[in-house]
Amino acid sequence: MQTFKELQSLYLGYLNTEIITKSPLGLYEPVNYIMNLGGKRIRPVLALMSYNLFQEDIEKALPLAHAIEMFHNFSLVHDDIMDEAELRRGKPSVHHKYDINTGILSGDVMMIKTYEYLASLKSERTLDIISTFNRVARKVCEGQQMDMDFETRNDVEISEYLTMIEYKTAVLLAGALKMGAILGNASSDQCDLLWEYGINIGLAFQLQDDILDVYGDPETFGKKIGGDIVQNKKTFLMLSLVASMKYDDNQIFSTTATLNAEDKISKVKALYNKYGIKDLAEAKMNTYYQNAQAALKKLNLDSHKNKREIEMLAGKLMNRVS
Amino acid sequence: MQTFKELQSLYLGYLNTEIITKSPLGLYEPVNYIMNLGGKRIRPVLALMSYNLFQEDIEKALPLAHAIEMFHNFSLVHDDIMDEAELRRGKPSVHHKYDINTGILSGDVMMIKTYEYLASLKSERTLDIISTFNRVARKVCEGQQMDMDFETRNDVEISEYLTMIEYKTAVLLAGALKMGAILGNASSDQCDLLWEYGINIGLAFQLQDDILDVYGDPETFGKKIGGDIVQNKKTFLMLSLVASMKYDDNQIFSTTATLNAEDKISKVKALYNKYGIKDLAEAKMNTYYQNAQAALKKLNLDSHKNKREIEMLAGKLMNRVS
Repeated sequence: MQTFKELQSLYLGYLNTEIITKSPLGLYEPVNYIMNLGGKRIRPVLALMSYNLFQEDIEKALPLAHAIEMFHNFSLVHDDIMDEAELRRGKPSVHHKYDINTGILSGDVMMIKTYEYLASLKSERTLDIISTFNRVARKVCEGQQMDMDFETRNDVEISEYLTMIEYKTAVLLAGALKMGAILGNASSDQCDLLWEYGINIGLAFQLQDDILDVYGDPETFGKKIGGDIVQNKKTFLMLSLVASMKYDDNQIFSTTATLNAEDKISKVKALYNKYGIKDLAEAKMNTYYQNAQAALKKLNLDSHKNKREIEMLAGKLMNRVS
Repeated sequence: MQTFKELQSLYLGYLNTEIITKSPLGLYEPVNYIMNLGGKRIRPVLALMSYNLFQEDIEKALPLAHAIEMFHNFSLVHDDIMDEAELRRGKPSVHHKYDINTGILSGDVMMIKTYEYLASLKSERTLDIISTFNRVARKVCEGQQMDMDFETRNDVEISEYLTMIEYKTAVLLAGALKMGAILGNASSDQCDLLWEYGINIGLAFQLQDDILDVYGDPETFGKKIGGDIVQNKKTFLMLSLVASMKYDDNQIFSTTATLNAEDKISKVKALYNKYGIKDLAEAKMNTYYQNAQAALKKLNLDSHKNKREIEMLAGKLMNRVS
């Protein structure tokens, strides 16, 4: 049985063999740069872990794992341009280190390389994997568009927000699990249950992120507490507050727009506390978490030696400290 | 037998059925916009024509034709951002009509939709087509990178320029022909000969474009004569001139940098004439054209009823007036 750490290390070894040394260097150097910036490599490990539920020869799934990590990094490169983010994992983002044109074109070639790795898979179900990936990748783009649209909209519904985070975050986690299962020759039901597990874990994960932004421990959270509030981000908490507030508090809330960061965070947090928004978000998060565990249970892995790892993975995602 | 015009009209009918009406509109409206800006639809018609050399049920190749046109338009959308081009086919480019973020993300989703159309092909060789497409798409990106690199380099070799235009322009024409042939269940040799035909026609086509930029008829060329000279573009003509000039002319040439557009065009053109650069370029172009015809001859289509259309296509590309 391979643990998360073992699979992560196996993937990192493979990643190292896939550094691109061909020309034009101006195109491929930024690809190597972003692919080697670090991160937990959750998505490729999810694919390996899912494959490993059904097959032992994990090496066969490495190109799939790499395709998924390549696509994830493609989306980071293009999103960072769109969000004008100068940093990624504490280092300069690609378009900031090079330039915007490099970010666009190197991102494009990463998408193509994703499909090269997918098409290289030795399986009778390669085309099925590519079709699954197509749906995932399209939804990731749709989620990013929704996220951008939300910035200028004042009528975003909570249900729309949940669809957005499902598309932008959860489907790639779910896709990694499902594609690993397809490659592992799992049954259609098993593939679907792993997808369901991934979607729910992804949604729970994102809601946790929304909660931690306000209530996280500054020591372990990594980002500055209250960042979403300062940026007026329409998170689950913010949309829930707007949907719950009574008239007077609406007035108070509207005055926070002109406050400095510290005061704004503290005023909005007071409103969150008054309306029990944290409990609401935690309840929603727990529902998704339980849905995920229920999907895993239906998989009937009780006798499976790799079951514990995939259960622990959810825990790892949810207590993002380690 | 289907003529170019018939296939073009068949494709335009299909294009019309593939307008995307789903949300988010902010993502898909720009896709519909660029896909319906017009153009000769040469690439999709090439795919249909090639398929039609081997099979009669052309409808089966329409998703392939559309995938290729979708990818071509993806590359136009992203290239226009990189080149800061405000116009495309005389209308606002996507990022100019909307914004850069829209151009990036709508372009991304067009690439994904390309693969959706490819993966939808009902053929035992779909994976072969996807792998062929992957190589083509990667080279298109590499060609664009080389083109951008050339802008700031002063040591570009003619051979590098030819590789750049092969990647940036010729491989997609060749790929359209080859993928049409694969889908049409042609032999490996036939697929390769159509590829060779496409590469050579593409190179001849681009060299003709370089020549017409200087020697074209202002009435029919469509763009302003001398544009490449004004922009210091490293075309086949420019690189051949730099490689041929004697010392004194080098001096004269270097003084053109500060001239106004009209004087610069006329001085550089005088140097082209002095060194027989037009003849050189035409000779090179004709070599590619003959290579293309030789590849077609090897295909042994003499008895084939669709042979004439594919031969005429080369002519159509080369006399770009119609």
